[in-house]
Amino acid sequence: MKPENTSLEITKATSSTIGKVDFDNLTFGKYYADHMMICDFIDGKWETPKILPYGPMQMEPSAKVFHYGQAVFEGMKAFKDKDGKVWLFRPEENFKRINKSSKRMAIPEFPEEYFFSALKTLLKLDKEWIKSGDGNSLYIRPFAIATEAGVSASPSNRYRFVIICCPAKAYYSSPVKVTIAQEYSRSADGGVGFAKAAGNYGAQFYPTNLAKDKGYQQIIWTDANTHEYLEEAGTMNIFFRIGDKLVTAPTNDRILDGVTRKSIIALAERENIEVEVRRVTVKEIVEAAENGSLKEIFGTGTAATVAQVSGFEFQDNYHELPEVENPYSMKFKKMLQDIQYNRAEDPFGWRYAVEV
Amino acid sequence: MKPENTSLEITKATSSTIGKVDFDNLTFGKYYADHMMICDFIDGKWETPKILPYGPMQMEPSAKVFHYGQAVFEGMKAFKDKDGKVWLFRPEENFKRINKSSKRMAIPEFPEEYFFSALKTLLKLDKEWIKSGDGNSLYIRPFAIATEAGVSASPSNRYRFVIICCPAKAYYSSPVKVTIAQEYSRSADGGVGFAKAAGNYGAQFYPTNLAKDKGYQQIIWTDANTHEYLEEAGTMNIFFRIGDKLVTAPTNDRILDGVTRKSIIALAERENIEVEVRRVTVKEIVEAAENGSLKEIFGTGTAATVAQVSGFEFQDNYHELPEVENPYSMKFKKMLQDIQYNRAEDPFGWRYAVEV
Ligand SMILES: Cc1ncc(COP(=O)(O)O)c(C=O)c1O
Ligand SMILES: Cc1ncc(COP(=O)(O)O)c(C=O)c1O
Repeated sequence: MKPENTSLEITKATSSTIGKVDFDNLTFGKYYADHMMICDFIDGKWETPKILPYGPMQMEPSAKVFHYGQAVFEGMKAFKDKDGKVWLFRPEENFKRINKSSKRMAIPEFPEEYFFSALKTLLKLDKEWIKSGDGNSLYIRPFAIATEAGVSASPSNRYRFVIICCPAKAYYSSPVKVTIAQEYSRSADGGVGFAKAAGNYGAQFYPTNLAKDKGYQQIIWTDANTHEYLEEAGTMNIFFRIGDKLVTAPTNDRILDGVTRKSIIALAERENIEVEVRRVTVKEIVEAAENGSLKEIFGTGTAATVAQVSGFEFQDNYHELPEVENPYSMKFKKMLQDIQYNRAEDPFGWRYAVEV
Repeated sequence: MKPENTSLEITKATSSTIGKVDFDNLTFGKYYADHMMICDFIDGKWETPKILPYGPMQMEPSAKVFHYGQAVFEGMKAFKDKDGKVWLFRPEENFKRINKSSKRMAIPEFPEEYFFSALKTLLKLDKEWIKSGDGNSLYIRPFAIATEAGVSASPSNRYRFVIICCPAKAYYSSPVKVTIAQEYSRSADGGVGFAKAAGNYGAQFYPTNLAKDKGYQQIIWTDANTHEYLEEAGTMNIFFRIGDKLVTAPTNDRILDGVTRKSIIALAERENIEVEVRRVTVKEIVEAAENGSLKEIFGTGTAATVAQVSGFEFQDNYHELPEVENPYSMKFKKMLQDIQYNRAEDPFGWRYAVEV
């Protein structure tokens, strides 16, 4: 348990916008919970974090984040169980990862006490925004941006760490069609692909638009050098089920080390489902699709939890995946959600109780 | 000549901050000229551009630029000649390039009339900020950012195009020591390296800090796949002089197509200096340094114009470059500046007069 009593400066919202939100028909990212956390890094240190009513911020037009993309973020969720208790899922993983991302982007690391006491305070203040029921959650977006005014291409000496929250329902509800990258790439060896650096995402929008024009919602990225190895999707790691075995790429400096990915590997091991963590070639997946041994492809990530892939395109051939009974994707989604919503034992200690 | 009379909404600053600026001791990017241009893209179109007093902007914490780095920029300069006339240098190149960058980052292209009439209006209003004299200029920073509020990882449907200006003196005055990238990389094949996308720059800060700790101001990036080919520096293209010949890497989807680079290639051709535009290996440059045929290395870019390199590090060996008489770097710098400051003929038509 992390210290509860780090001092934060709290300014409560005088009214709530929750009445405007139709929780049954949510557009993800449209509404924000009433409070946010802001913490500035000035003169070499993080100041006392402030909890404030959610609202716009003043920024210098020359703030380095606009020019040099010195920015990182995280994505995590709070869940409410049927008794109204609130839970986070492995939040220390997100905490460690944002600092790993920050280090690569030359942003100072954020203190652990601040991160956890801000999370707890926000969830307490905005507990009404967390709805119980499968697929419902409060999505939490911590991020850090370079705020120094100055257009010279060098690291900022001022930063702002912010946490905002927005209510979410299940992300991709129906199975997605994907295409395998053969021209564009997501990241380079020795680059920042392993970090949740802002620029990694904007760089995918154009190729993803091209894919969408052809009827594919997502791209499975391959290595930039040869396009022969399957890596990950835009905001999900990728698993392939060949026969009864799961295969997924190892993480490296191009691939995000997903919390959902590592949780599913642990669950699969518990279920005695073999998982091979190794480089996966496009060739073997096409062959497996052709000879019928490819049973499933699914993506894993905080937003989608587990997203079924219904088929993939490679070199103008579309490979539809079979309909399998009791798919692994659904099995793992349920197992994960049962832990997240406190409906099942948590032998791994992944659930993190929040007093609200 | 571009149309002069596109309507802009102009709000003049009621007072100027120019009195605070010590033009003899400028810190680059510390002071901004009194006016800026802001133009918003809303409901599928760019609104009428606004000229406003320079100042902070209100941003939603969930604005996509903060989270997904959907942002591009340009860098250009205005020069004042001894008669007080104001000139831009090949501004249509910057205009074309920002739209090329925008396209890759899924940002809508900006209209040419808006770009040029905003530039002209800003330079007219802030003409006092442009100082004559070698090395003095007004640095112009056009940039475009995604402003839609929303944390889902997809292209924004709102954007803001901004132009801010700041007075500048010569950038790197003394020769720089550089190191050759062997571990980190700047960009991937099929990535966004050719674009002035914000995230490309923030991603270089950490490796550049490591280089600085070892005494090198800049990194010469190599290809991410093999680290065998020399590509460009952080904000400069790179030329090698071997004997009396110049060698520089061809542009591709990893390398920025620099305006200074292409101007120097044209000047060299006019001077009957041979320029080989081809892949350059680290090996040949190390060998040329060892056998004495490597005479110069220099970087080229709008900020620095031409920056002499005094030596380079590769695999823990430092190669000091010889002191040559009448170096090409200085020759080209002078030629370029003579054109920029209207001290020489401009057979190429690079100079662009601005009525102030
Ligand atoms: C590039 C990328 N890959 C994978 C993931 C999945 O990671 P996690 O399971 O921790 O959400 C994400 C999203 O968070 C991501 O941005
Ligand atoms: C990555 C990079 N390379 C090269 C350059 C030089 O280009 P230009 O000569 O157009 O300024 C720049 C800067 O503008 C740059 O950002």
